[in-house]
Amino acid sequence: MEQTLFSSDFRLGILGGGQLGKMMLYTTRKWDIQTYVMDSDDTAPAFEGCTVFFEGDIMDYEAVMELGRQVDVLTIEIENVNVKALQDLEDEGIAVSPSAKVLNLIRNKATQKKFYQEKSLPTAPFEAMDQPDVNTSREFPFIWKSAEGGYDGKGVKVIRSAADLKDLPAAECIYEDMVDFDMELAVIVARNAKGEMKTYPVVEMEFHPEANQVEYVICPARIPEEVSKKARDLALKVSEAFDHVGLLAVEMFLTKSGEILVNEVAPRPHNSGHYSIEGAVTDQFEQQVRCVLNLPLGSTDTVLPAVMVNLVGTEGHTGNVVYDGIEEILAMDGVTPHIYGKKQTRPFRKMGHVTIVAKEIEKARELAEVVKGKIKVVALAG
Amino acid sequence: MEQTLFSSDFRLGILGGGQLGKMMLYTTRKWDIQTYVMDSDDTAPAFEGCTVFFEGDIMDYEAVMELGRQVDVLTIEIENVNVKALQDLEDEGIAVSPSAKVLNLIRNKATQKKFYQEKSLPTAPFEAMDQPDVNTSREFPFIWKSAEGGYDGKGVKVIRSAADLKDLPAAECIYEDMVDFDMELAVIVARNAKGEMKTYPVVEMEFHPEANQVEYVICPARIPEEVSKKARDLALKVSEAFDHVGLLAVEMFLTKSGEILVNEVAPRPHNSGHYSIEGAVTDQFEQQVRCVLNLPLGSTDTVLPAVMVNLVGTEGHTGNVVYDGIEEILAMDGVTPHIYGKKQTRPFRKMGHVTIVAKEIEKARELAEVVKGKIKVVALAG
Repeated sequence: MEQTLFSSDFRLGILGGGQLGKMMLYTTRKWDIQTYVMDSDDTAPAFEGCTVFFEGDIMDYEAVMELGRQVDVLTIEIENVNVKALQDLEDEGIAVSPSAKVLNLIRNKATQKKFYQEKSLPTAPFEAMDQPDVNTSREFPFIWKSAEGGYDGKGVKVIRSAADLKDLPAAECIYEDMVDFDMELAVIVARNAKGEMKTYPVVEMEFHPEANQVEYVICPARIPEEVSKKARDLALKVSEAFDHVGLLAVEMFLTKSGEILVNEVAPRPHNSGHYSIEGAVTDQFEQQVRCVLNLPLGSTDTVLPAVMVNLVGTEGHTGNVVYDGIEEILAMDGVTPHIYGKKQTRPFRKMGHVTIVAKEIEKARELAEVVKGKIKVVALAG
Repeated sequence: MEQTLFSSDFRLGILGGGQLGKMMLYTTRKWDIQTYVMDSDDTAPAFEGCTVFFEGDIMDYEAVMELGRQVDVLTIEIENVNVKALQDLEDEGIAVSPSAKVLNLIRNKATQKKFYQEKSLPTAPFEAMDQPDVNTSREFPFIWKSAEGGYDGKGVKVIRSAADLKDLPAAECIYEDMVDFDMELAVIVARNAKGEMKTYPVVEMEFHPEANQVEYVICPARIPEEVSKKARDLALKVSEAFDHVGLLAVEMFLTKSGEILVNEVAPRPHNSGHYSIEGAVTDQFEQQVRCVLNLPLGSTDTVLPAVMVNLVGTEGHTGNVVYDGIEEILAMDGVTPHIYGKKQTRPFRKMGHVTIVAKEIEKARELAEVVKGKIKVVALAG
């Protein structure tokens, strides 16, 4: 039975129970929206705080159909879901955001890149192929990317010579020119079904040199106003091209020659928007709930300049987690740790993040290094 | 077994599952602190979002002992708990905040008023008695207050003539002078076991003329700086006098002659501090968690001037709740509704609140009236 929004019985389904889902639950609790969450792991971060937890595989057609038929609106917190089920649920009249169409375009990197090309959205030159071609005539170095399943630095490799091509999986992939960039930027676009759109400020992403994971996100990016405007305009065009409902995180390169190229997108809340919990009027998780429930969008204005630091498992530590030094950073003004609630740490696993706000962005960036030096994600001794 | 704070197994017990408990859970989720919540109603607002829910009577000795022995720290979100059990748990070495001693002093209004008198803390003149005395020589009008069990305007009555004394319950009570006041103020004091103390800014409480419930809370109060300082100093003295660990909300009268009198206190998060979720750097619920876990206190500074409006059930409406007009207020900048998640509405029941922030307090106060006019808590038709 279809339920009235803002009665006590409106049900939002979320596929995936990770930290992104967990942080969406703060908003659903605030507005008393019932949440039906599915994940194969019943110790997943979003297990607590949802109304009903379904232990199930979000790649499984039947499991997703079963969940989807019990909710008023269905969304995701990770792209690796059974898209066929989403399509069939849409056809049955259930509101699904992002749509199966968008997920199909995005989940395969070759398809995604071809889409940008077709829509004349600037992106790095590439070629798509069914499997790596060792006899390529492409100039070294270039980037190999697996078309499917890549995440957090997995499925991506810099190819410096033909030898680097030998051990790659025999699966669909792209070869992409290495972009000579100054900075990696991201813009989150919010769009509801009415077509109302807003962009968050441009953020700057600093990567960890070894793990190929984002280490710091800096908001606002330290770029001229006209570059910022250009990046936000491009992000809007990308969201419109996809006809996407929900958040779309658009990752971009700012090249040394001042061009902005779309790298890739994520149709959901994104690591580059975590700062918004403390740094923006409306945080990205609330904004995602607003988008998928077709509510008016909240302000994306910044409250204070912010830097977000990812808390990842320390190398050499595997086991029951403890957050060493957290009490010290809790004593620092403008510093907010978020712990995702994963019981086990392992090297480079995303375990939480810390937001640092300050009146000046350079001050926040300095404090972020101090924070990084104090807090360590380690395994509990004994 | 005692657990390490900021491991994944640290357990905080909360007696009571109402909205105050629910809003504390946002912080425990953020920091992955396991919560054991007890309430007799398994549709209580804090049912979702806690780790383990115990259906049980928090006035029952055995129930409270059972919960208390399973946690590392025990706190409350309502004063009506079995205090004997808290005392025995303290004696067993469990950290309990607020202490049984403080609850015993506070829960009985006669004891509380005598405590202020002993400690030379200014309060309105009163007399305590075992039951109402109809032959009082006290000058009319005055206030009758039941010593125990009063809440949200219940157990309080203005006595204008001897006739008003006839129908009062034959139970312990106080007669108190009617204070000729300009304003009702409140200050929330935070204190951890290390003795670190902070006060939130002084707020002004506007009451609903009929329901005797707070209708608007205005932060900061529109009073001169020296009055504000006096109120914050007095609140600190009250918290110190109780040797209290946790939040203490100190309600005060500002008299027409400029005196500040302590009215009553609550040893927990308080309606007068709800604005802090959007209006302060550290919200009162996070601060309460910091206090009871003996963590460093967060900044109590204001982010923006704020007004909080209570959302109570509309007269004439009883049944399954719906929040009429909420989409309209979601489109207003600086307006954040909070829905507690009670399934049933009834006249004047506290169902939620709305925070309005703006650059100027008068602007926020104006917007608060607009909000109040748009959103209605009603029963769902059909």
